[in-house]
Amino acid sequence: MNAPAHLSAESVSLRDMALALFDALAAQTRDGAGVTRECYGPGEDTALQLFRSFAKTHGMRTDLDRAGNVLILSAQDDLSQPGLYLGSHADSVPQGGNFDGAAGVIAALLCLVRAKRENRTTPFPLRAIVLRAEESAFYGRANIGARALFGMLDDQDLAARRQGEGRTLAQAMSEAGIDVAPIARRERLLDRAATSGYLELHIEQGPVLAARGLVTAVVTGIRGNIRHRRILCRGEAGHSGAVPRWLRKDPVFAFSDLVMRLDEHWRTLLERGLDLVVTCGIVATDAREHAISRIPGEIAFSFEVRSQSRDTLEAFYELVRSECRAIASQRSVSFVFDERIDTEPARMDEGMIARLSEATRRVGLPVELAPSGAGHDAAIFAGAGVPSGMLFVRNTHGSHNPAEAMDIDDFMKGVDILYEAAVGAS
Amino acid sequence: MNAPAHLSAESVSLRDMALALFDALAAQTRDGAGVTRECYGPGEDTALQLFRSFAKTHGMRTDLDRAGNVLILSAQDDLSQPGLYLGSHADSVPQGGNFDGAAGVIAALLCLVRAKRENRTTPFPLRAIVLRAEESAFYGRANIGARALFGMLDDQDLAARRQGEGRTLAQAMSEAGIDVAPIARRERLLDRAATSGYLELHIEQGPVLAARGLVTAVVTGIRGNIRHRRILCRGEAGHSGAVPRWLRKDPVFAFSDLVMRLDEHWRTLLERGLDLVVTCGIVATDAREHAISRIPGEIAFSFEVRSQSRDTLEAFYELVRSECRAIASQRSVSFVFDERIDTEPARMDEGMIARLSEATRRVGLPVELAPSGAGHDAAIFAGAGVPSGMLFVRNTHGSHNPAEAMDIDDFMKGVDILYEAAVGAS
Repeated sequence: MNAPAHLSAESVSLRDMALALFDALAAQTRDGAGVTRECYGPGEDTALQLFRSFAKTHGMRTDLDRAGNVLILSAQDDLSQPGLYLGSHADSVPQGGNFDGAAGVIAALLCLVRAKRENRTTPFPLRAIVLRAEESAFYGRANIGARALFGMLDDQDLAARRQGEGRTLAQAMSEAGIDVAPIARRERLLDRAATSGYLELHIEQGPVLAARGLVTAVVTGIRGNIRHRRILCRGEAGHSGAVPRWLRKDPVFAFSDLVMRLDEHWRTLLERGLDLVVTCGIVATDAREHAISRIPGEIAFSFEVRSQSRDTLEAFYELVRSECRAIASQRSVSFVFDERIDTEPARMDEGMIARLSEATRRVGLPVELAPSGAGHDAAIFAGAGVPSGMLFVRNTHGSHNPAEAMDIDDFMKGVDILYEAAVGAS
Repeated sequence: MNAPAHLSAESVSLRDMALALFDALAAQTRDGAGVTRECYGPGEDTALQLFRSFAKTHGMRTDLDRAGNVLILSAQDDLSQPGLYLGSHADSVPQGGNFDGAAGVIAALLCLVRAKRENRTTPFPLRAIVLRAEESAFYGRANIGARALFGMLDDQDLAARRQGEGRTLAQAMSEAGIDVAPIARRERLLDRAATSGYLELHIEQGPVLAARGLVTAVVTGIRGNIRHRRILCRGEAGHSGAVPRWLRKDPVFAFSDLVMRLDEHWRTLLERGLDLVVTCGIVATDAREHAISRIPGEIAFSFEVRSQSRDTLEAFYELVRSECRAIASQRSVSFVFDERIDTEPARMDEGMIARLSEATRRVGLPVELAPSGAGHDAAIFAGAGVPSGMLFVRNTHGSHNPAEAMDIDDFMKGVDILYEAAVGAS
């Protein structure tokens, strides 16, 4: 569980420290296929232990906040002043990759080591925060550790069972030594006055940087979304040979019509400069009535639109409903919507965006501004009024799978940028 | 198992006979939800027994052909001359309706009764043929009884197991007393010289007659089809928030694009007067990777095009392949096709079409010519070179379900037309 001893030597480069930490983390949380760092479970505990051990080796102090997240501080930091928090999360999805979350934590640790080595004094102390339970894989809700800090978990979240059937989230947190009562009362556990800001480095979970030959991007905002888990398009089942076109009420054709109309709206809105992605991840006719020679009676599909802009989300959603009404009338089908689920977009702080951009230029890289499509803890900090910024580092093969791949040289460029922004912003 | 005794009385109308036969048939093969007349099983046996008993009551002779189908002949008919066959099938799908198949058999029986009552002599003797195993529900292959007559069952058909796991078709036929050896040798069991023609009345399995306010239609041909059980559209899975439009390889959008292009071609071809229906009855993304926030990696779908014209089928199929190539290139996906399955269209005999049309006029109804989208035994007789004709009777709620609904007055109009055509054509 200990960090390799040679990591403490003053002669070791930050790059070698990073390599050793990533290797140790992968080796200690391997699950056969990838890595598993279950929140409030053994994998996350292992990662937290490794980070704490590394911090102690480097003469830093470690602490737990009231939501069970790990704080790493300089020996002099008594938490009496507001600090600049550098962080990300320690947990992973089952059979996940080694970099999602861990890259941001290790980057934060390296910034603290570098500031100490360079004997850098900053207006606000730098603190690393190792957040727990960012992934929604085990308890449905994402960003649990960050939400707990700001009174953003509700009773339903705390009562959710591990993968739908195990212990509840409240039990898991309690067994991890966390006092759940103030969290259940939705108290704010991290004062606004305690934080001057939050900065997070994270691997990009999409393919944009790699496709465009860029190493890093400064995140402008984190997309919110509007979702339906299940929209049902109902038509009329019939014999595929015996019902002519003019008498058909074919839900598959109606669904396809909807998708193509949305595709066209999407294209048009992008041309107008709006931020938007549209996905139907789940599509299925009813398996109980499957036959090649049957016009199916219905098709069910999920729907999701994401944007950094609340207005764009609402406008696109209205287009969806209006196209469904038009298609229902033109193709004699009906659309039945389940509950609409909203997640608010989060804007990154303009000052943090400027500092990360300036830091990128100082490191000698082009400044790319990009939205984050995936959710991140930075969105929770931003939503709680903490000035927040995020930096993406190029990564291939997406995330949440063992194949995610970040180049160590790209990572070190990211650490340089994070450090420059941190010492400038602190 | 016996037909109601009063049916033999000379004073009973054909309409009352029909009502009594339909009622007895429904009562004796009821399954709770609808009727089940499993081929080479108890339900079909019950129906055959009922028809034979009715025939005997009316002084007719019954016989079995070498494929196990029931022949009903006038007492004088020694099978030495070619006859005009009037027929349809005795079996049903599980939980099917009372009229699909049975209507044509009962119509044939009533024509024989009427010819006897009217002491009508005809150049060719009228024979009713009660075919077995027309439905594909139990052994996969349709028109088994008719195919067996013409050497059109292959080894694969005979080896098919009941609903995929029970006895084989060969065993089922053998247990029903049929000598399978000549069928397996693909011998023709019904000589071309034995039949002057084949006429079949059948309920319409689509909604066209009801929608247009017509009672009957003369079938011009039986649509053939080209099918794929499973076409796979492969794209690239990704995080729904993190992959922008220009880097997406979304198979759901590609599939929808394909369906809408085919919809447009279909519309255009119909305007040019071609016969065509297009269906994707089964559509599904991969359930193992389902998530609202995941761009799915693939979508699978079935495809079927039906037309009376071989040329139209081929032309449309070529459009499908060509649109798939275009979409594959435009949307960075690939389409993987499984084995193409062809069923040839069958043309009804021009002479039979003319006789059924003339008979319709004599009965005082408008002549509607219509293709049959569903397959029928008449297609097998036509394919074997027997001059064949078919008449549809209006029916609502489709077929293969307990709700199929044919009005008895419509049916009697159909019987009148069949009789007029039969005595004219025989």
